[in-house]
This record gives sequence, structure tokens and C-alpha cells, in this order.
Amino acid sequence: MRRKIFLFGDSITEESFSDGGWGASLADLLRRKADIMVRGYSGYNTRWALKVVERVFPAAEENGEESPAAVTVFFGANDACLPERCSGFQHVPLDEYKQNLRSIISFLKNRWPHTVIILITPPPIDEEARLQYPYTENKTGFPERTNEAAGSYAKACLTVAKECQISSIDLWSKMQQIPNWQTECLWDGLHLSRGGNKVVFEEVAKKLKEEGIGAEDLAVDLPLIEHVDPKDPLKTFYEF
Amino acid sequence: MRRKIFLFGDSITEESFSDGGWGASLADLLRRKADIMVRGYSGYNTRWALKVVERVFPAAEENGEESPAAVTVFFGANDACLPERCSGFQHVPLDEYKQNLRSIISFLKNRWPHTVIILITPPPIDEEARLQYPYTENKTGFPERTNEAAGSYAKACLTVAKECQISSIDLWSKMQQIPNWQTECLWDGLHLSRGGNKVVFEEVAKKLKEEGIGAEDLAVDLPLIEHVDPKDPLKTFYEF
Repeated sequence: MRRKIFLFGDSITEESFSDGGWGASLADLLRRKADIMVRGYSGYNTRWALKVVERVFPAAEENGEESPAAVTVFFGANDACLPERCSGFQHVPLDEYKQNLRSIISFLKNRWPHTVIILITPPPIDEEARLQYPYTENKTGFPERTNEAAGSYAKACLTVAKECQISSIDLWSKMQQIPNWQTECLWDGLHLSRGGNKVVFEEVAKKLKEEGIGAEDLAVDLPLIEHVDPKDPLKTFYEF
Repeated sequence: MRRKIFLFGDSITEESFSDGGWGASLADLLRRKADIMVRGYSGYNTRWALKVVERVFPAAEENGEESPAAVTVFFGANDACLPERCSGFQHVPLDEYKQNLRSIISFLKNRWPHTVIILITPPPIDEEARLQYPYTENKTGFPERTNEAAGSYAKACLTVAKECQISSIDLWSKMQQIPNWQTECLWDGLHLSRGGNKVVFEEVAKKLKEEGIGAEDLAVDLPLIEHVDPKDPLKTFYEF
């Protein structure tokens, strides 16, 4: 009756139902039309994501259930942690990142050939804010992530999307076009502020529309109140 | 892997993923633990809800899938429209309202014997605001809903919950304990403001906790980053 849209990613996806979050905004936009299923895993990189992808999208989903309308794949912020710095255990080399993305896409395409896949690049990094908001004590004076590294992963992500002929959102570039993106889009140099959530929401909504699964394209679940005849309301439900 | 919680109701449920909405807040509270499935149908009363309940909760859900952890049932605001006023076609007599609620509960209990059902009463009505924000032209000078009528339906709802030995939230009384509830909890005399959404969220969260399915009780989907060994991250995923 309703389509499903899965959001697969790291903390930026896991937190997407917080106040003003991009996931909640999508759920509101597609109310009565699609269920937004959050599959965000804080701290995860593509290496770990690949290890768990079969558990995240269990085979039961394909039995009897309609395939999801779309899946967003939003990883790279953790892969791009610098290997020698304080979050080095999350680092994944650039080539492996690309390979992991390809494998995740291939898994999804194999499971659901008609599902739209949207690859989202990591956001830009505000290094100063990262020093102000470290996850663990960081006395080194160097941030665990740099904007340059995030940019390389963003470019790699776009390359893979092109190769695999799927949709992509260049969040890294898009955000940096916004004046004061460091504080306008991010709150700790990495995670999304209300403004940043708005950017992601708008970009994903735009892509869904481009792919023919926007708010206007999806069927409404059960008759809308404006289609109920005030003179004989139950008729609507008998005919239905 | 994750439990499901269904929110079944009218517009106050359909809109629960708007900015600051109670549904989105629940999804955020139970992140990594439960999928919040919105099944809100704007304008619906219990008579129409009963006509569609089998479509809202299709039998497929019980095949293979685990039963949901909980279902909130949140109707009455439309049933309580006065019969001779401008939204009279949504009115359902008090006795039928009770009977319809009993039938919905019986349907849910039959489908999922172990699922927690939480009945929520309609909110109070600010009649002055209803005249300011009519849905359709209303030249009568009388609001289509009164707080007194909403109160009768709220009491009936609590009676049914007690009879059926299920959980309930007396939103009608709870909100009226809040100073300036008319504007603090509602924006158009009926639908929830940010403050009203907070009340519903907190009450539902409290009930879920009382029923043993709160944030602390539900299992986490996949290992948390703090349980990943930084010295050998993949170990976590192999063992898992």
C-alpha cells in the first residue's frame, strides 16, 4: 500500500529524525505515501557497513513485500578520518571506500533491481569546530578529519555513482556554496545543523522527484478527506 | 531485528512528523531500536477507521514478521464534531464511538495478542481559535467542535480502555493542566503546537516505558560504535 524508502548511512542518517532532521522532513513530505525507514549507524564506515548490509536489508523484505522505492546510501564521513589521527580506527583507504560502495550498490541492485539508489557524498568538514568538539580527548592539536580528505572521498563517491549509473548528491560542494557553511550547515564541524538538514532534505526530495518518486508521483494511502462525499461519507469506503 | 510501533489515528497522527512532531520525536528517542510507522488519516473518525483497519494493518504483517511492539490508537477529535454544525458529516455518536473503539482494539488484539495497545483521548478544543481557523467557510458563528463534547469523547475513550484493560492517555485532561493550554498546546484550537507535540511525545514515551518497551528495554540494531574495539574493529562484526 505504501512504498518504503530506506536511509542507509552513518550518524548523519541515524540522527535524521532529530528536531528539524532531514529524515523526519522526508517522512512529512511523503505522508500517506511512503514509510521512511532509518538505517543509520553512528560511527560506521563502508567497511563495517558492507559487513552488515545483509542484516540491514534482510531477505524477508523481498518475500511478498514490494521492493522499496528508494535507498539513500550516505557514507564516507568516517572512512575519511585520517589514519594517523585520533579516530584512525574508522579510516578506510580511498580505493577500498570506492570498492565498498560498489559492493553495497551491487548488493542493493541485486536484491531490488527497480529500486532507485541515491549516493550522497560526505559533507564538508570545519576543522576548527572539530577541534572544539572532539569525540574523545584530543591533545594533538590536529583534527581527526580534514575538509580536503572529505573532498577526496566526496569525489570518489561521485565517480562510483557515475560508473554505476545511479543518482548522486554532491553534498560536499553544495554546502560549501552556502555563505558561512561552517556554522550555517554544521554544528560541530561535521554533523548537520537545522540549516544543513534542510539542504540534505531538499536535495534528496529533488532527486526523488527527478526519479519519478516525488510527493506528486506516489499513490496516497486510503481516500483523502477531500474525496469523501459529505452527503454520504461511507460510500467512499464501500466503493473503495 | 527492529521492533515496529504503529501510530494509528487522524490528522494529529498524520502530522506527527512535521517540525517538532511527536512521531518524529519518538522515532528519534527509539533510534536503532524501533521503526515508527505512521498510519494517520486526516479527517477520519472511528467509523471510517473501522472500515479501513484491515487495509491499514494487512495480514502480511503477521506472516513472518514479528508483531509490532505497540500501536497507538488516537481517534475522537473528528467523532466529536457536533452533528448539526459545519463538520457534521464527521460526527459519530458517542455510543458508536465506544463500540468502534472496542472493535478496533479487538481487531488489533486478535491480530497481535502480545502487542501493547495505547488509547489516546482527543485533545481539548479551544473554541475561539476554531472560529478563527475554520476548514471551510463558517458563517454560523458557532464552532464545529466544543471542548465539552471533546471531553465526553475523552471520557468514553478512557472507559473503553479500562474495560479492555489496555493503556490510555488522558490528553484532554493532561493538556488543560498546562497554563494557557489554548495557545501553548494548540495552534488552531485543535491541532498541536510544538508544546502540544511535546506533551503527546512525553506521555507516549512514558507509557511505552511503563509497558516495558521504552528506550532502555528495546534491543539495539547492530553494534554501537562504543562497543567496537578500536584495536580490532572488524572483530566486532565477525563475532556478531
